[in-house]
Amino acid sequence: MDGYFGVRRENTRYLTGFELGEGEEKVAGNSGQFLVGRDEVVVFADSRYTLAARQQTGGARVEQVYNDLSARWATLLEGMGSMRRVAVEAGFVPYAVWRRLAEAAPNVELVAAEGWVEQLRQTKEPSELERVAAACAVADAALERLLPRIKAGVTEIELAMDLEWEMRTNGAEALAFEVACLSGPNAALPHGTPSSRTVREGEVLLFDFGAQVCGYRSDMTRTLFVGQPTAHDREIYELVARSQQAAIDALAHAIAAGDRPSGRQIDKVARDVIHAAGHGDHYGHGLGHGIGLATHELPSLGRTAPDVPLPSPTVFSVEPGTYLDGVTGVRIEDLLLFDAGERRLERLTLFPREVTVVG
Amino acid sequence: MDGYFGVRRENTRYLTGFELGEGEEKVAGNSGQFLVGRDEVVVFADSRYTLAARQQTGGARVEQVYNDLSARWATLLEGMGSMRRVAVEAGFVPYAVWRRLAEAAPNVELVAAEGWVEQLRQTKEPSELERVAAACAVADAALERLLPRIKAGVTEIELAMDLEWEMRTNGAEALAFEVACLSGPNAALPHGTPSSRTVREGEVLLFDFGAQVCGYRSDMTRTLFVGQPTAHDREIYELVARSQQAAIDALAHAIAAGDRPSGRQIDKVARDVIHAAGHGDHYGHGLGHGIGLATHELPSLGRTAPDVPLPSPTVFSVEPGTYLDGVTGVRIEDLLLFDAGERRLERLTLFPREVTVVG
Repeated sequence: MDGYFGVRRENTRYLTGFELGEGEEKVAGNSGQFLVGRDEVVVFADSRYTLAARQQTGGARVEQVYNDLSARWATLLEGMGSMRRVAVEAGFVPYAVWRRLAEAAPNVELVAAEGWVEQLRQTKEPSELERVAAACAVADAALERLLPRIKAGVTEIELAMDLEWEMRTNGAEALAFEVACLSGPNAALPHGTPSSRTVREGEVLLFDFGAQVCGYRSDMTRTLFVGQPTAHDREIYELVARSQQAAIDALAHAIAAGDRPSGRQIDKVARDVIHAAGHGDHYGHGLGHGIGLATHELPSLGRTAPDVPLPSPTVFSVEPGTYLDGVTGVRIEDLLLFDAGERRLERLTLFPREVTVVG
Repeated sequence: MDGYFGVRRENTRYLTGFELGEGEEKVAGNSGQFLVGRDEVVVFADSRYTLAARQQTGGARVEQVYNDLSARWATLLEGMGSMRRVAVEAGFVPYAVWRRLAEAAPNVELVAAEGWVEQLRQTKEPSELERVAAACAVADAALERLLPRIKAGVTEIELAMDLEWEMRTNGAEALAFEVACLSGPNAALPHGTPSSRTVREGEVLLFDFGAQVCGYRSDMTRTLFVGQPTAHDREIYELVARSQQAAIDALAHAIAAGDRPSGRQIDKVARDVIHAAGHGDHYGHGLGHGIGLATHELPSLGRTAPDVPLPSPTVFSVEPGTYLDGVTGVRIEDLLLFDAGERRLERLTLFPREVTVVG
C-alpha cells in the first residue's frame, strides 16, 4: 500500500493528533480527513481549522481544502510520490465520495480498508491508559458531589443535567455520551433517556455516564437506592454484583496464570451467574466493550465476540445487568485496565460498588 | 426508480417518522435505515428499537435486522415486488456497505441519490414551522431566565451549562447543538467553545444556542454587554445590527413585491453594509442557512449559494457578524419564516435585538 486515506474522527486523532469534537465532523467539511503517504502525513482543514490543525499535529503537513477534495486528489497524490494503491476507510467514506476520488485519479487503485486502525487502537499505550483513568476520576468525583442533592421529588433530567454540570466544570472537556439517569421502572430500559419523571422513595436510580479528558473517555454505571431498598430490588442488585465480581475474578485468575482469556469466555462467566438465578431472559446486552477515543471500541466482550485472546494492555467495561420490564432495573459497570504482560488488573472507576442509599 | 434506500437520520425522521437522537445512528446499527418501495415503507430496527419504530412510524413495516443488512437484502427486495433500480443515499451510505448490497443482489441496479430528500425538506409544512417556532420560544425563555445570573466573575462554561439546563428542563427534548458562550476576545472565534475564562466587566458576551422540540430545531445568537459597552464594541454592534436589518428589509421588500430573491442576493445586501464600513475582511462566513430537522440544511444564504429563488414556505437564519482577532466579536442571529405565497415574513426568535446590558 502506498497510502492511507482516513476520515473517521477517532482515527484522525489517533494517527495525526488533530482533534474534532463528537459530531463536529458533520459540519467540518473535509477538515480532519487525512492522507498518510510513505514520507509524510497530510491533514486537510478549511480556514476555520487550519490553525488548530497546525498546532495539534506537529509534523503533519496541513493542506487547506474546501468542500470538493476530488478536485485536488490527483495533484495531491502526485505530489506525494508515485502512488499506485491507496487504502481508503471504506466503512466511513460515503460511496459518492469514493466514486469521485476514483474518477479523479483513475490510475490509482483504491483499496477498501475496514478496521485497520481500529485494530491498532484496542491496544493502549501508557499515556492513553492515564487519560482514561483521568476521565474515570472526573466521573467518580462528579457522582460523589451529586449525592447530597439526590432526593425524592427531583426529576431524572434535573439530576442528569446536574451530573453533567459537575463533570464539565471539573475537568471534563466533554461528555463521553449523554448522561442516563433512570428511576424505578425506567431503569429497565437499557437505552432509556432521562425524563421529567420524579425520583421516588423506595426505588432504584440508575446513572450511566462518562467524561472525556484529553480525547479519552470513561464509562460507569451505578444503580443507587433512594431510601431503603425493597427486598426484591436488593436481591437483583446483589445478583448483578455477584455476576460482575465473577467476571472480574475470572480475569484476575487468568492474569495470575499468565493467560489471556477471550471476551466471549468472560461474558459467559458473568452471564451464567444471572442465568442460574433464572434471569437469563432479563439480560439482553453484552458484558462489555473497549473504550478509548471512542466510547465503544474493540475489544468486545459478548456472546458473539470473536473467541480470541483479549488484546493487552487494554481497557474495557464489565457491565452486567438485569432488567424487569415495567418494574426495575440494575446495572453495575466499571472500567478495568487489563495488562497480561505486567500481570496487572486494575479497576479505574473507583466510586463504591456497595449498596448505596441516598435521599 | 423502484425503491429508495435511506440511512440519513433526518431523512428517516422526515419520510418514516422514526426518531433517532443526534449521533445515535452511530450506535444504532441498522436501526433507522429504511427502504421505500412502490407499495410500502420498511423501517429496519434491532430489538432495542423495534417498539419505538412501531409506535412512531404508523403504517410502515418494521423489520428486525441486526448488523449485516446485506444478508437479507436480496430477499427483502424480492418480497417488495420486482425491483430493478433502487436509489441509495450515496452521500451517506459507506462505500463498503454499498458494495456488499450490490454483491448481494447483482441484478438490482443501485443508483446514487444525493440531495433528493434534502431538496424536499427545505420547503416546510405548517406543522414543521410550528415546531421550529416552539423551539425558538424555548430558547427565548431560557436566555431571559439566565440574564440575572450573568455577572463578571462567572465562567463561560458555567453560563453555557446554565443555559442548557434552562432549555432542557423547560421544553427542549435536546439541544440543537452545544451552547456557545464566548466572552471578550473569545467572541472573535466563530466556532469557539466555552472555556473556563471568566466574564469581565466592559466586554461582550456572545451566546449562540438552540433547542430541539418534536425533532425540529432553533438557532439564535445574541451578543450581550457585561456592564457598559465600550464605544468601539457598541459601534461594531450597531454595524452588525444594521447589516442584519438591511437583509431583513430586503426580504420584506421582495415579499411585498411578490418576488422570491436568491440566498446569494440577500447575503450580498448584508455583506455590503459590513464591507462599506471597512470590515469586509472581518466577516468570513455566510449570512444564513435553512433549519428544521437538521440545524444546518437548505436553503443556503451565502456568497457561493446557488443564485436561484429561495424555496417557500421555508425558515432560515440571518446572522451577520464582525470578528476582530484577539479583540472582540459580534454576531446577531435570528430565524425568519419566509412565505412568498402568503406574503409573510416573520421573525421566530423574539428575544430583543437591542443593545442589552447585563451584570
